[in-house]
Amino acid sequence: MSNRPQNIKGMRDHLPEAMLLRQHILNTLIDVFERYGFEPLQTPLIEYAATLEGKIGDDEKLIYRFETHGGDKIALRYDQTVPLARVVAQYQGQLILPWRRYAIGQSYRGERPARGRYREFWQADVDIVGSNSPVADAEIVAVLTDSLTELGFSGFTTQLNHRQILGGIARVSGLDEQAAGVVYRAIDKLDKIGPDGVREELLKSEVAPDAAERILEMVLLRGPAGDVLEDLSGRLDGDERALAALENLRAITRILPDMGVPAAAYTVSPSLARGLSYYTGVVFESVLEQPPMGSLLGGGRYDELVGAFAGRPIPTVGLAFGIERLHDVMTELGMGPGARTVAEVFITLFDPERAGASLQLARALRAGGLKVETALDPSEKLGKQFKHADRKGIPFALVLGPDDLARGEVVVKNLRNGEQRSIPRETVVAVLQGL
Amino acid sequence: MSNRPQNIKGMRDHLPEAMLLRQHILNTLIDVFERYGFEPLQTPLIEYAATLEGKIGDDEKLIYRFETHGGDKIALRYDQTVPLARVVAQYQGQLILPWRRYAIGQSYRGERPARGRYREFWQADVDIVGSNSPVADAEIVAVLTDSLTELGFSGFTTQLNHRQILGGIARVSGLDEQAAGVVYRAIDKLDKIGPDGVREELLKSEVAPDAAERILEMVLLRGPAGDVLEDLSGRLDGDERALAALENLRAITRILPDMGVPAAAYTVSPSLARGLSYYTGVVFESVLEQPPMGSLLGGGRYDELVGAFAGRPIPTVGLAFGIERLHDVMTELGMGPGARTVAEVFITLFDPERAGASLQLARALRAGGLKVETALDPSEKLGKQFKHADRKGIPFALVLGPDDLARGEVVVKNLRNGEQRSIPRETVVAVLQGL
Repeated sequence: MSNRPQNIKGMRDHLPEAMLLRQHILNTLIDVFERYGFEPLQTPLIEYAATLEGKIGDDEKLIYRFETHGGDKIALRYDQTVPLARVVAQYQGQLILPWRRYAIGQSYRGERPARGRYREFWQADVDIVGSNSPVADAEIVAVLTDSLTELGFSGFTTQLNHRQILGGIARVSGLDEQAAGVVYRAIDKLDKIGPDGVREELLKSEVAPDAAERILEMVLLRGPAGDVLEDLSGRLDGDERALAALENLRAITRILPDMGVPAAAYTVSPSLARGLSYYTGVVFESVLEQPPMGSLLGGGRYDELVGAFAGRPIPTVGLAFGIERLHDVMTELGMGPGARTVAEVFITLFDPERAGASLQLARALRAGGLKVETALDPSEKLGKQFKHADRKGIPFALVLGPDDLARGEVVVKNLRNGEQRSIPRETVVAVLQGL
Repeated sequence: MSNRPQNIKGMRDHLPEAMLLRQHILNTLIDVFERYGFEPLQTPLIEYAATLEGKIGDDEKLIYRFETHGGDKIALRYDQTVPLARVVAQYQGQLILPWRRYAIGQSYRGERPARGRYREFWQADVDIVGSNSPVADAEIVAVLTDSLTELGFSGFTTQLNHRQILGGIARVSGLDEQAAGVVYRAIDKLDKIGPDGVREELLKSEVAPDAAERILEMVLLRGPAGDVLEDLSGRLDGDERALAALENLRAITRILPDMGVPAAAYTVSPSLARGLSYYTGVVFESVLEQPPMGSLLGGGRYDELVGAFAGRPIPTVGLAFGIERLHDVMTELGMGPGARTVAEVFITLFDPERAGASLQLARALRAGGLKVETALDPSEKLGKQFKHADRKGIPFALVLGPDDLARGEVVVKNLRNGEQRSIPRETVVAVLQGL
């Protein structure tokens, strides 16, 4: 056993039952994305290492890098955002902005594998490239709300914040740019370490005690979005960038009802920092009330990264669904199609002479849109054929023996309850379509 | 320009128009595969290098290999067959044989990029694991026939052969096992170098002139499958393995009509060798008459590889569709959905006050199953909004201005011919669904 090969730690095999759930997730997301006019883009999993470097700070050490025989330094992509920036620069003449694009595929990070953390993971990204309109920001929130709803989630909330609200909180508390970074990192841990933990971190970083209190008061503001924005505009008065950020969030939240996003589905949460340094505007995260699995997805506006290769600013807003997390949460909650196998009908082979009639029947059922597995060995006993179908979880098995053929009938056996009945051959497609 | 990042040579970006064709190809294949009860499997793109080594002979030098920081020797998969063998060994308790599985994804080979040859390429594999029945062989041929037909191909032929027919041809020509390998390689080049070229290669490899003639006569046999098999059984008389192979092909071709594969769709072609050394039984390839792009797909029976890790024989038959080749051929022939963009309808934003009404209309159309892109900037001139939609190839644009709103109407503009008309707001979903 021990010298049998295994999959690599942190990179998962997905057997059929898991795959049926994953396909359901991806097909649902694609449906929603395309309904909003998002277009698919696919880029290679491998990029020149130089393309990926210098974009994500400390996490860069997690990039899988290697050198080809030809001496090229290449790397596995760690997200689908930097490749998007490359594509936008490389195909400028062919792309029409604003461009809604989605991308679904694997990325790689050499993390220590843990519950819910994988080295190979799938993401589904949607981004609107080339627009700084709050309509674009609101549309991304509408897309995520529709997506989670169609996947079957109900108890989720999307937290909204804006990078310049956090910046304003730091500035009105008397901190300079560098100290502000300390504040973001401390606030980002609020869910894990609580308000006292954040206070402690701030004081340790030599933020003055009264500044720390003001910061805490602001980031802990909760309530209806309008109230939180109103309250913050008093506290951030005089900081123009922060006030513009508040106005931007107001514009976004004014649009959301027209896009079908109910007020109960989101909050303004001044403590939301989001790790990635490239965000420049609105940021958001959707979290489930139960089970506690961290955020289902996150995103925001990043007006600098996409234009970096093109050499001009290209404002962009987007988000990434973490497919691994959706998969794990939906498995835990028993959501999804619940199918164990693909086939809906199993057709037995009675004996070598009658096998042809069964195979013809299989073909007729397939032409009727049914998913049909047949037995493969006509000399195998019928009981064994039934058992195979039952173990696989296929609900119905059909038999075409000599008597059935003579009478123009088919035996339909319900493998869940063992009942069987004979029905005319010409009605079997319609009968099974109805079951 | 020159310091802008590029994609890696031999690894393609697929912009939306290409992706719409690729999604059409994959969705069509998945539909056919699932109709036969094939189940999806997904494995990581990365395997321990040791898992992949020693399986493909000389081509092993094409494998992308690297070492992680932790010192693991890993490699990018070069096909989806060796990972299948690993999975079958690793999850023996969970898999029910015979098992029909499909797999769709990328593989990697460090080839010199050329027309139709890529370093990152997609394949769609179907395999029936754990059956040596000719019903399984025939089913794979039926699956490929249905797949190519549903993709819209008509002028294709599937060539069938059997490894032990080639073996028999070598043996009755007096060649030992080692010399037989020379014969396979020479025959494999028949399409490229012609009969004279093959003769020359055989003679150069010290095959006796009369043996070379006998070999050529046999591999050049053409005609209806039954005739070729009949002819070969005379010539291979006395070679038991070859006669069993002929009987196996007879059994397969007897089953094909019951599975809906017409006799015109296949031939027996004794010259078909297939490069890979792991085939043990029937082999096949489907070729287009036009354009000359080599084979669209190939496969066969390989009874040893899948069981290699499990330590017991697990007979398997399958095939791989080369998605890059399908994509290139279908592009060249103008096949496929022909869509340039996802959105079917574009909704303008008349001005900031009326934007909400347009966004609500977009939502209503989406609820009706339509794919709808909206403008993002309500201060942009209508003419510019129309122009954007037209450049993208979206067929219809809608306008909701103050007069339209007052009258409860929507302006529908056909961007192909410029015609526009006003229709009642409550009928617009149904009207557009009908167009």
